[in-house]
Amino acid sequence: MVTSNQLLDCHTRIKPYIHNTPVLTSRLVNKKLKANLFFKCENFQRAGAYKIRGATNAILQLTEEQKKHGVVTHSSGNFAQALSLAAQSIGIHAHIVMPNTAPEVKKIGVREYGGTIHECDPTVEARQQMANEIAARTGATFIHPSNDENVIIGQGTAAIELFNEQPSLDYLFCPVGGGGLIAGSSLAAKYFGSNCTVLGGEPFEADDAYRSLKSGKIEGNTSVNTIADGLKTTLGNINFPIIQQYVDSIVRVDEEEIIMAMQLIWERMKIVIEPSSAVAVAAAITFSRKNLHDFRDKKVGIIVSGGNVDLSKLPF
Amino acid sequence: MVTSNQLLDCHTRIKPYIHNTPVLTSRLVNKKLKANLFFKCENFQRAGAYKIRGATNAILQLTEEQKKHGVVTHSSGNFAQALSLAAQSIGIHAHIVMPNTAPEVKKIGVREYGGTIHECDPTVEARQQMANEIAARTGATFIHPSNDENVIIGQGTAAIELFNEQPSLDYLFCPVGGGGLIAGSSLAAKYFGSNCTVLGGEPFEADDAYRSLKSGKIEGNTSVNTIADGLKTTLGNINFPIIQQYVDSIVRVDEEEIIMAMQLIWERMKIVIEPSSAVAVAAAITFSRKNLHDFRDKKVGIIVSGGNVDLSKLPF
Repeated sequence: MVTSNQLLDCHTRIKPYIHNTPVLTSRLVNKKLKANLFFKCENFQRAGAYKIRGATNAILQLTEEQKKHGVVTHSSGNFAQALSLAAQSIGIHAHIVMPNTAPEVKKIGVREYGGTIHECDPTVEARQQMANEIAARTGATFIHPSNDENVIIGQGTAAIELFNEQPSLDYLFCPVGGGGLIAGSSLAAKYFGSNCTVLGGEPFEADDAYRSLKSGKIEGNTSVNTIADGLKTTLGNINFPIIQQYVDSIVRVDEEEIIMAMQLIWERMKIVIEPSSAVAVAAAITFSRKNLHDFRDKKVGIIVSGGNVDLSKLPF
Repeated sequence: MVTSNQLLDCHTRIKPYIHNTPVLTSRLVNKKLKANLFFKCENFQRAGAYKIRGATNAILQLTEEQKKHGVVTHSSGNFAQALSLAAQSIGIHAHIVMPNTAPEVKKIGVREYGGTIHECDPTVEARQQMANEIAARTGATFIHPSNDENVIIGQGTAAIELFNEQPSLDYLFCPVGGGGLIAGSSLAAKYFGSNCTVLGGEPFEADDAYRSLKSGKIEGNTSVNTIADGLKTTLGNINFPIIQQYVDSIVRVDEEEIIMAMQLIWERMKIVIEPSSAVAVAAAITFSRKNLHDFRDKKVGIIVSGGNVDLSKLPF
């Protein structure tokens, strides 16, 4: 069981390596949703996403001997850049296993932050196998992007900062991919919120978490045909029990709703958010429509998970 | 001659109606330009651009009798929305003469803010004639988007706020369209800066200010084939003398440089800036390349003028 002190100690530990990102509001968006929304802008985080929090925490927990051999992970996106930058900041080496289908902009990010890319076939098995091989060959410690307690705790620090600014949030929306962010955020809500309901946002096209909560066991995705490329991964055995215990439910949204939410935030708030973040916004919009009475004038937090978008492939 | 007290009084007057927008920095952009850049983010301003400052100041200077009859302006873009919103906030009516070629997103903005649109042919003569007719018929006071002393003073308040945060800027870059922003900003630099050099950014495709400063008289544009749709207008007899006196020079940039600067800021800073704002960024990049020695490690302010972009027509 993760304690509140573990979360607070983690926050103190990683603070020198991360930004306390701003919490933005928009009168126009509030008017549209008839509620008071608070956007925790992790798109302004180092490496453009919240992932640096968990990556930094995981690395800082290594022994000096482990640090000498570096770290290895597999990631199609933001965790790849985050682990590379965290490793560079702390002065160790990072091996990144990426599918050969990963967006070029994310590969460039990894290289800029000094990570070594190892390309593999775009399957769960291939990437895990290559990560295992690298760990065996180099002695690097494997750090999972989402199913790792240190990572989960680190990701929860974004919500801690949000609750520091807005202690009385009624709702907190997070996108759900591998489950690290929402697990950490739900722990933060439990310890630092005041009766705050935590809700996940998920594409219909990758609704493993929705189905897992229904069935009571971890379900895979049958298709992942979604623009929200950060949300194609599935839950893990470490974060799933936390999600079962502390997340109220998952709100599913379709691709059109994701794109419209993304456009709304870009146009109205003038910030670049990635499709995965737009899923949380779309979930809030959907929830507000279905729960008009409960939602009205409530305080609603949204974790804007990141802003890493390939501008040459926009859906507008 | 505009005094420092006129600027300060204006700032006090309009404060309840505007945002004190954030000043953002980016380590990656600093590294690229080898200087310390401070972005005054008027893309986060009400109605998405700095224009609300001058519009509000001009309206607040009207007599009660004048206010009853409302205001009228001609604008292809941001001033149209700004005057509509300023008028709505103060409780008066705004007539907006717009060319029938104006982007739909800007027309929607005007209507949302309660302005009445009057469409005209897209020529300087047609819009001035229609504005004159409306003024004569309704008694509305004509407010020019850039060549009006109250407007110029209002636009200068963005730079005042920037100097309040960064008093020792070495350089200040502004985009130059009709000349209101750079005239006001150069007055702010004179009174509240500390030996700050003010530079304008202008597209080669609409370089009237560059040529006007060379020739010593107001020059027109021969072509306006630029993505920076806010910068197609020309200087006026009220702002030109201020620009002649307090602006060091104009840096011209080509269309590719504008698009690359826009992409740099969107990708790296995760904020939506419009092409006109990217012109100021591109000017800073060009200037830094040509003046490597002078620019290194200097403090450089950039007025990010706005974030109103038609997402369906992006250049990426």
